[in-house]
Amino acid sequence: MNGKVYLVGAGPGDPELLTLKALNVLRRADAILHDDLVSQQILSMAAQTALRYDVGKRCGQKSTRQEAIHFLMIELARQGLQVVRLKGGDPMIFGRAGEEIRALREAGIEFEIVPGVTSALAAAAAAEISLTMRDTASSLLILTGHFADVDDRPLPDLRALLASGTTIALYMPGADPCVTVKKLAAAGLRRQTPCLLVSRASTSAQQIVLTTLEDLAQMQAQAKPSILIIGDVARLSQHDRLRLHGICAQPLASQPEIRQLEIMQPEIAQREVAAAPFESRHGGDEAVNHG
Amino acid sequence: MNGKVYLVGAGPGDPELLTLKALNVLRRADAILHDDLVSQQILSMAAQTALRYDVGKRCGQKSTRQEAIHFLMIELARQGLQVVRLKGGDPMIFGRAGEEIRALREAGIEFEIVPGVTSALAAAAAAEISLTMRDTASSLLILTGHFADVDDRPLPDLRALLASGTTIALYMPGADPCVTVKKLAAAGLRRQTPCLLVSRASTSAQQIVLTTLEDLAQMQAQAKPSILIIGDVARLSQHDRLRLHGICAQPLASQPEIRQLEIMQPEIAQREVAAAPFESRHGGDEAVNHG
Repeated sequence: MNGKVYLVGAGPGDPELLTLKALNVLRRADAILHDDLVSQQILSMAAQTALRYDVGKRCGQKSTRQEAIHFLMIELARQGLQVVRLKGGDPMIFGRAGEEIRALREAGIEFEIVPGVTSALAAAAAAEISLTMRDTASSLLILTGHFADVDDRPLPDLRALLASGTTIALYMPGADPCVTVKKLAAAGLRRQTPCLLVSRASTSAQQIVLTTLEDLAQMQAQAKPSILIIGDVARLSQHDRLRLHGICAQPLASQPEIRQLEIMQPEIAQREVAAAPFESRHGGDEAVNHG
Repeated sequence: MNGKVYLVGAGPGDPELLTLKALNVLRRADAILHDDLVSQQILSMAAQTALRYDVGKRCGQKSTRQEAIHFLMIELARQGLQVVRLKGGDPMIFGRAGEEIRALREAGIEFEIVPGVTSALAAAAAAEISLTMRDTASSLLILTGHFADVDDRPLPDLRALLASGTTIALYMPGADPCVTVKKLAAAGLRRQTPCLLVSRASTSAQQIVLTTLEDLAQMQAQAKPSILIIGDVARLSQHDRLRLHGICAQPLASQPEIRQLEIMQPEIAQREVAAAPFESRHGGDEAVNHG
């Protein structure tokens, strides 16, 4: 009988940001194929007896071909094993899971996808900025530093996107900040655009730098993995460990006075009911939040 | 001494998609302020003695004002409590965390953000489609159904974005699919654009429908929360429980023949080394995946 392959997101780095499901699947795995970005701390959560394959793709070094990963997943599953394909962040964003899913389907191997915390969210949590802000930033574009590398596709107009209230999260901005900034400028971004460079988000080696694209071009490359958050929300970061590079943090807009409202009475445990002593000023479903 | 506030992502619905950190924080909480979208199953993971406040915003019903939520978080923390502000999905996307962070900063209350699995990733996992595909979809735009509701901002050009290889994930598409489709058409999308409507992703009530914008406009509203995934990747869904609405699923492009490669030898447990018997055809850092 065939085994099963789990495409699992290992999250941004902090082992505590694994999901309960990822942990459960990892503990039961007979074989693990993991990327470089998955830490030893996370791998050590698996059974000692599990077979482990580092199929990561190192910069400029020899790496495993995608076809080899497919072949290995399929062969291990055909041997009846529970196989975990463990990827940094979430498997459905920039993880080539689409190709792996196709290979598994064509081979008739059962599979399941376990989503994870993607890096932009960990970077935003680290920098303590919301990626969307009511009336300021209404959407989020996630793209990679390679966005301009496919010649036959038009560049997205990033300046228009920022103007329409979009925050941009650039994954894998690239080894040379100068090249990255040139690409972003070619896609329309002004050099004064604020940005936040977050490297190794959620780990003890985390670094956060608030700068502008102009000044980013002068910087040295940061430790990988890093993420560049571009747009006005970047300026809202006030994290203690924030470094500034050629930019002054703006004072926060003053908060509307918090009115003295009666403290809501809680319900205890299972006897919960809707606590709604204050009427909403908003109708419709606009205020149903889900991130 | 003041307590602390944790802004925590509860994930898309499945309690197993909580992170380990979210679970730990929830178990230690003295007080929990949660949205409607957070299930009883997840709330039951907290201590029985924790104070609970449903501060959710129900569609068309009375709901808690944002200022009241701020006031309550701050007052509870000032009483020395460990407070969890629990939000569906991830707190940094469409969760109004930006306003809550500002209120906490101004009140001098310590806080920490615990990221979560955002709904688009759970929807993609459910539908078994990658949101990005090498050479097809190189970026992801996350926006809400209210994207056109702020009058003084230009609409993003969604057609140009799709053409540049962007997948669109529309959160909270709205109660009336016809209105949603009109907005999307106004932002440039063609009515034949494929889309995948995923409701209650990751829960036992999950539903997935593959359709086009044109046919979506004829559909009844789906159970909330739902997400609309727009773009060519939608067609790749072949999930068993997929329903088709006015569309024929396209056959998958044939997979390049999988070559017979020698099975890689695993290293056991801590003695892992890079297993790289196949040379990469790709140089540079283009292949460092992190989702």
